[in-house]
Formats: sequence, structure tokens, C-alpha cells
Amino acid sequence: MANPAETTAKRNASLAPMLSVRNGAKAVEFYKSAFDASQIFRIDAEDGAVVAQMSIGESQFWLADESPEHLNFSPETLGGATARMVMVVEDPDSAFARAVGVGATVVRPMTDEPYGWRIGRIVDPFGHHWEIGKPLE
Amino acid sequence: MANPAETTAKRNASLAPMLSVRNGAKAVEFYKSAFDASQIFRIDAEDGAVVAQMSIGESQFWLADESPEHLNFSPETLGGATARMVMVVEDPDSAFARAVGVGATVVRPMTDEPYGWRIGRIVDPFGHHWEIGKPLE
Repeated sequence: MANPAETTAKRNASLAPMLSVRNGAKAVEFYKSAFDASQIFRIDAEDGAVVAQMSIGESQFWLADESPEHLNFSPETLGGATARMVMVVEDPDSAFARAVGVGATVVRPMTDEPYGWRIGRIVDPFGHHWEIGKPLE
Repeated sequence: MANPAETTAKRNASLAPMLSVRNGAKAVEFYKSAFDASQIFRIDAEDGAVVAQMSIGESQFWLADESPEHLNFSPETLGGATARMVMVVEDPDSAFARAVGVGATVVRPMTDEPYGWRIGRIVDPFGHHWEIGKPLE
């Protein structure tokens, strides 16, 4: 039988990715303009490094300037990304076009995929990849 | 004035990270045992590659076998991770100990940080980093 306290703790767990970037301050502005993200919390260090908590709809993510000494590497430093963001929106074609319009690069155009999604993929100016789509009706 | 259709679309947006790993099948089992994650969707390809959608509490993430030809790199391939997962739970000390007990490695032990969180950091056997914590009372 489930332990009720443990079940409550699990239900209340939350998870959000923290993206490492070069130039966090610019990244905040990019994600606002590309994805209509909102900044909900931010720390600016004296050296200009930024830690920011962002929201897109009801989901949240973080971004922070990279610090290789703490094992936080930007995609620019490593030459690729080890996680990509999957964004589900009601109008993925518009969201995709908006992001490309402000500087994202198309990796795979919006396509109806055989696995039942309409989805496309972009890479942002900081090297992070985003798949934007929704399940087909 | 906000466009009501656009506002609804934004509210309904959702975001989930997709972690690239070597050996997705093993990663699914690890995340179940380390984080009490549930597998909610999974595709197994003929070559053994896995794409899996997982949940921890009310949050979701994906994992998939890496495919460098599609720009999906595991931390093992790149020698580091470009995103880390921030997990907020009611009892971070227990969650941290559980993950370490099944094979995660401590990067930074659980500590009361001056910025008002009790938090620690681990790296999992696939090279992804997780910060596990909660705001201090």
C-alpha cells in the first residue's frame, strides 16, 4: 500500500530544465521575443552573469551563464546540446515562424510526422534546440 | 489589449526537456529507481533505441538514445551537459540519498545555501546533472 506522505511528496514534485548559455542577459531577451516567455525571477551577478527563471505558458525553465568550473557548459563550448526542449503549443506553425523571425535557425521544418505529430525543430542563437509541435487531430 | 486566442494558446503551452543518453533502456530503469519516475509513453526501435516520456510528480521529461547525426548528443559523447534538471521536492535529503543509493554520484552535497534553498547536486550514470532541493522555510 502506498505511503500517503510519500504519495503527496511525489505529487508535489516539480522539474524544470536549467539551460547553460553564453550571455544569459541576451538569452533572456531572446526567449522573451522568440517564445513570448516571461521572466519570473532573476539574479544578476556583479560580473554580469545571469540566473533567470522563465515561464512559457504554465511551464517553467531556467537559464544561466555557463560556468565550466562548476560543470555547466554551454552548447557553444561543447559543440552541441545534450538536451532539447519539446514545446507543445496550440499553433506550432506560428510559434515556429515567430522564433525563426527573431533569429532562430531551422533544423527541421514543420512537418506532419508519421508518428502523429505536426512538429519542427529549431536551434536558438545560444545553441539550444527546440522542437515545437502538437499532436495531430 | 491581449488577443484572447493568443492568451489561451500561451496558457496552454507546455515544455518538457528531452535528455539524450547512451542506452535509453537502462536510463528508463535508472530514473524509475532513482527518482520514482513513471514511464508514461515509450517507443522501442528495432535497433534497441528508445524514446520514453517519463513523469516525476506532475512534471514530465523525455529521454532518448543519442543520435549525433540528428544533433542529439549524450553527455558521454560531448564530455559534459548543456542543461541540468532542477527538481523541487518536499524531502530533498531523502530524494538525494535515494538517487545516490542506486548509482548517482554526488557533485555537491545537500547544503543550506545563502540564497535560501536547501539543495544538492548529483550526476547520473548517463552524465546528466540534477539539482535536488527546496526553498528553506
